[in-house]
Amino acid sequence: MTVKVKIAFDGTNYCGSQIQKNGVTVFGVFQEALIKILGYRTDIKGCSRTDSGVHAKCYYLSFDTREDINLSKLPLSLNANLPFDIRAIEATNAPSDFHARYSAKAKEYTYYIKNSHVDDPFNLGYYYRVPTYLEEIAMDNAARYFIGRHDFTSFMSEKSKLVDCTRTVFEAKVSRQGDMIIFKIKADGYLYNMIRIMAGTLINVGSGKLLPQQIEAVINARERTKAGFTAPACGLFLTDVIY
Amino acid sequence: MTVKVKIAFDGTNYCGSQIQKNGVTVFGVFQEALIKILGYRTDIKGCSRTDSGVHAKCYYLSFDTREDINLSKLPLSLNANLPFDIRAIEATNAPSDFHARYSAKAKEYTYYIKNSHVDDPFNLGYYYRVPTYLEEIAMDNAARYFIGRHDFTSFMSEKSKLVDCTRTVFEAKVSRQGDMIIFKIKADGYLYNMIRIMAGTLINVGSGKLLPQQIEAVINARERTKAGFTAPACGLFLTDVIY
Repeated sequence: MTVKVKIAFDGTNYCGSQIQKNGVTVFGVFQEALIKILGYRTDIKGCSRTDSGVHAKCYYLSFDTREDINLSKLPLSLNANLPFDIRAIEATNAPSDFHARYSAKAKEYTYYIKNSHVDDPFNLGYYYRVPTYLEEIAMDNAARYFIGRHDFTSFMSEKSKLVDCTRTVFEAKVSRQGDMIIFKIKADGYLYNMIRIMAGTLINVGSGKLLPQQIEAVINARERTKAGFTAPACGLFLTDVIY
Repeated sequence: MTVKVKIAFDGTNYCGSQIQKNGVTVFGVFQEALIKILGYRTDIKGCSRTDSGVHAKCYYLSFDTREDINLSKLPLSLNANLPFDIRAIEATNAPSDFHARYSAKAKEYTYYIKNSHVDDPFNLGYYYRVPTYLEEIAMDNAARYFIGRHDFTSFMSEKSKLVDCTRTVFEAKVSRQGDMIIFKIKADGYLYNMIRIMAGTLINVGSGKLLPQQIEAVINARERTKAGFTAPACGLFLTDVIY
């Protein structure tokens, strides 16, 4: 049977979600837990490749099992075999052609910016802190320029060798809740470091270094150096996947 | 000058707020940081004695300095000398007779109960989890019996030798936000483990083991065994102090 599992994880101690040669990954830890339960290794698909240190409130994995398994008990069994910073939330039966990554129509990410002169001892590691005042209305106006089908080369790490850098952004908005500034984006796909570079660019807008309407020229330049800095991974969460 | 400092701390790694012979306390760590800044030791007063493992979103300390100091820069200097789980938020000048504990008119505590079959990897250590469904309306009805001037002996740890167990509760309410049940209480003072025993008793009400109207008899019994279990410290936060 094809199984779809929803998990949440604190990425602080992991080198991203995909299996890599060096360092512990969420994917690798999940695979080891699943082997203990199934008794054999199965090919697991993850819904996205998240950077090292990025968190997920909602991340999907899919895999096939040799026989039918009790899905209502699977999260409990997984949680007994997973570390506390990775939690299985639910397991459901999926169509046999379901693929956690390729079946996804859109993914929503949220970037948290704490706009305060002081850290919060309870949520340390779950936001990026900017002490100087940020104007969230300007940031929201700037974010609107991301919406639509664009070549986002300016917002891709220069380490990436990708050729087709066109992605469709369905939603992009910035709001403030107390001293927390929240940047939400929903797109059909993302380039390497794309959201973190967008967040860094929006911070430049919020602090007055860039005007909202200048974002259009930054996109059209198709040049990494025209966009802002890459904001740290700790502020970024995968928050929804739409199938 | 008399100084009043507001701090927030994650109590996970501390043996309460007061200086004790064994174990690291928030108070002790704060005192060492302050000595580094002032260059001498001064008598510090804390607004309350919190149990080992209890957190504070808002905790006040007061002390006298030999000369006037720059209060706007004090939180920054303190944070440079404090560990990340204790953060100084603000420092203000207080009247010379101000005492962080005795000047307090009321203190508000909040107890967080996550009513879910699964833990949250991001807030682990900041709530107590109850997997069976809790009826928050019944819990709120029960909490109302705490309001008023009562002898709360039933809600005091048997380890305490206190004689006068009468306290005035100004507010006590239970609400639900998604899968989080929030118990808020405001009183002029608290007995040892009082809020944690109240939380345990409210959980018994929420799961149907006790009726809301039975709380009155529990209070009147003045006997620890009539109340519920002592809920864990990790769910408890000092959230406000009224001067």
